[in-house]
Amino acid sequence: MKFHKILIANRGEIAVRIIRACRELGISTVAVYSEADRDSLHVKLADEAYCIGPTASKDSYLNMTNIMSVATITECDAIHPGYGFLAENANFAEICESCNITFIGPSADAINRMGDKAVAKLTMKSADVPIIPGSDGLVEDMDEAIRVAREIGYPVIIKATAGGGGKGIRIADDETMLIAQISTAQQEAQKAFGNAGVYLEKYLTGMKHVEIQIMADKHGNAVHLFERDCSVQRRRQKLLEEAPCSVLTPELRERMGQAAVRAALAVNYSGAGTLEFLLGPDEKFYFMEMNTRIQVEHPVTEMITNVDLIKEMVSVAEGNELSFAQSDLKINGWSIECRINAEDSEKNFMPSAGLIPFYLPPGGAGVRVDSAVYPGYTISPHYDSMIAKLIVWGATREEAIARMKRALSEFAIEGIRTTIPFHLKLLNHSKFVSGDFDIKFLEEHDINAPE
Amino acid sequence: MKFHKILIANRGEIAVRIIRACRELGISTVAVYSEADRDSLHVKLADEAYCIGPTASKDSYLNMTNIMSVATITECDAIHPGYGFLAENANFAEICESCNITFIGPSADAINRMGDKAVAKLTMKSADVPIIPGSDGLVEDMDEAIRVAREIGYPVIIKATAGGGGKGIRIADDETMLIAQISTAQQEAQKAFGNAGVYLEKYLTGMKHVEIQIMADKHGNAVHLFERDCSVQRRRQKLLEEAPCSVLTPELRERMGQAAVRAALAVNYSGAGTLEFLLGPDEKFYFMEMNTRIQVEHPVTEMITNVDLIKEMVSVAEGNELSFAQSDLKINGWSIECRINAEDSEKNFMPSAGLIPFYLPPGGAGVRVDSAVYPGYTISPHYDSMIAKLIVWGATREEAIARMKRALSEFAIEGIRTTIPFHLKLLNHSKFVSGDFDIKFLEEHDINAPE
Repeated sequence: MKFHKILIANRGEIAVRIIRACRELGISTVAVYSEADRDSLHVKLADEAYCIGPTASKDSYLNMTNIMSVATITECDAIHPGYGFLAENANFAEICESCNITFIGPSADAINRMGDKAVAKLTMKSADVPIIPGSDGLVEDMDEAIRVAREIGYPVIIKATAGGGGKGIRIADDETMLIAQISTAQQEAQKAFGNAGVYLEKYLTGMKHVEIQIMADKHGNAVHLFERDCSVQRRRQKLLEEAPCSVLTPELRERMGQAAVRAALAVNYSGAGTLEFLLGPDEKFYFMEMNTRIQVEHPVTEMITNVDLIKEMVSVAEGNELSFAQSDLKINGWSIECRINAEDSEKNFMPSAGLIPFYLPPGGAGVRVDSAVYPGYTISPHYDSMIAKLIVWGATREEAIARMKRALSEFAIEGIRTTIPFHLKLLNHSKFVSGDFDIKFLEEHDINAPE
Repeated sequence: MKFHKILIANRGEIAVRIIRACRELGISTVAVYSEADRDSLHVKLADEAYCIGPTASKDSYLNMTNIMSVATITECDAIHPGYGFLAENANFAEICESCNITFIGPSADAINRMGDKAVAKLTMKSADVPIIPGSDGLVEDMDEAIRVAREIGYPVIIKATAGGGGKGIRIADDETMLIAQISTAQQEAQKAFGNAGVYLEKYLTGMKHVEIQIMADKHGNAVHLFERDCSVQRRRQKLLEEAPCSVLTPELRERMGQAAVRAALAVNYSGAGTLEFLLGPDEKFYFMEMNTRIQVEHPVTEMITNVDLIKEMVSVAEGNELSFAQSDLKINGWSIECRINAEDSEKNFMPSAGLIPFYLPPGGAGVRVDSAVYPGYTISPHYDSMIAKLIVWGATREEAIARMKRALSEFAIEGIRTTIPFHLKLLNHSKFVSGDFDIKFLEEHDINAPE
């Protein structure tokens, strides 16, 4: 099957990214937008665009009925969900299929099996993918929690099985703290996710967040596209990602890649996905979760492999076999992505929405900008604060860092505050430059203070 | 020697390109500008900037005295001339050296030997680089012209030895025309270039303009970085360039590359240079001229080799050996560059200077923009009409074409007319898509008319 028209059920830079890929593939595009997004770039760039509801996401970008109505009326063959919103909603994937519209992503079953953290963990264990020592699934009661915690040793982390993105997480340094926190955690989880289930894990230190990009087709083929180091996080939100990861040996890369492929095959995965691992200083790595969608930071992988992940997702959804084998993939050079957020990084990352009267993205060799901003555009306070991704390629990590600093320094965004000053300081920080940093880096170092 | 500060003796996109490379190398930059260019991007991006004279190029960008004064006062180690202006002025290269400031380019001797077309031809002949059949150097008188023309056969082309860029050229289909044109050509050459010398060549048809990028150091090493197809020309001005060239076999590429390296070694060349050849349908190729500087279209070579040619020029000028050997270089994918000129391509490419109130370059995967334009910038009518270079990379020529069309279609330049509509039509033209076009393509086909 060849798609003729795709609906993009998203907004901002990822909607623009998908529209661009479709245009290059000769596929027509349908944008959808909320009332707040009438003047958005994805609306201007798509072949057709339809308003699907008021500003609040639940009424527009999460409004499955309205999105499906547009897709049906405009005779779309497929829907690309991007990331966030409906991208990991198994119910939405099922509705698409029942309407004879291809959901560009994995099956509802694969989404479900990876979406429930406890189920995912068990699935990974049986696929011989290393998992963090912890409870076998949910902890039933306090006694079990205490038994498991003694077995794996303190500190332990309490996680909501339905959580994600850093939500629903608590750490206990000893038994007293565990006893104090476990029922609070359950109550919070029930309130936040409608599911009180929690599980325990050993709390690891000195860990890097290293994730493996995978791509699989509907014919049982799966490959990995190497790793991304996403350890630069603030409150569990990624701010800068790079590929490859400077501490990985080729042997470890191979082991992590193979584990990721086993994970994908274990759930009959198809499309683009990411296996997130914690990697310790001892080269041991542990499965955290699988993101069953394209990720914000996918461009760094594209830069070092020359694979267009969005086009490959479309091709796989059309039913084609993967257009490359594992042996075709090689790492070429180094890539870094900085997330440019509409936040004042010098004032505790306070949101900074508003009009951008002047805008000039950087250009030149090795620079890619994925953004939906244009001069005169007004950043809405209602959605994600990420307004641009600045991605660079360099022959070496050193060149990539130098190029990123150059590109950041010429990126002109007037009228609002952004995270550009933060990134410039980060890229000059000796720990970042050395590559010797873990996920606690930004907690333990004040980037705004002199070293 | 490591350079600490470089003066960029140029303006527009190439000045910005060089400033970017220097910044990434940690080298300070000094911009120079004419009175018309006070608000130019290269002035804003450089570490220091100095006005060197009035708007007319001869009073500013060609004003060697003022440029050398700035370089001396600001204690620059080197000068990068870009292309055009003083880039191929051997006298300027000599003045730089006599002031103990490195000219980032070849020696004055190499510039001289390649700058005089008749001398260059003889030098190439002795280096076993194929040249177009013609007179041995200048034709002394009418008798010699007639004898040579009979020997090589009509049609023949009369060229001024001091000419270039398509100036000082006449074609004769038979002896009557030759007799009528030879003295006119000499008089015109005297008037235009201060040198009446002309030479004769066989006029070839069905030829592609295929040029080889070379890079050489001061230690006798020289490599080629494959070819660019620049056959899409209007009045001998290139409009679109691509790399590689779709008609080259690996064997022919190797032969042309080796000839280019022989040419470079024959004049003790150092730095970046380009050997321009005419390539016939019979796979025979002939030396046209050597450009002893970086070229407008260098990015397409950078895109398929991942070599930063400007950085390599700086490194070679510092006295380093080439950072790569011939065997390190591989062609990866396909790249196309479109020159975006401030010209109305639908009205005979009439110049279209003026204010650009809104400007948004395209972004996303595989797109590079080299430009000095920003929102609110006013294009001056006094300089080159080229205001942006849009360069794309694709895994295949087909993908590169699709990506270029996508990027052109979202490139927003308001307030003036540009060549964007021309490029969109060109990229859809069946002859261009097939790769089967020669340097007469735009003469013989009206791109604005339906096929």
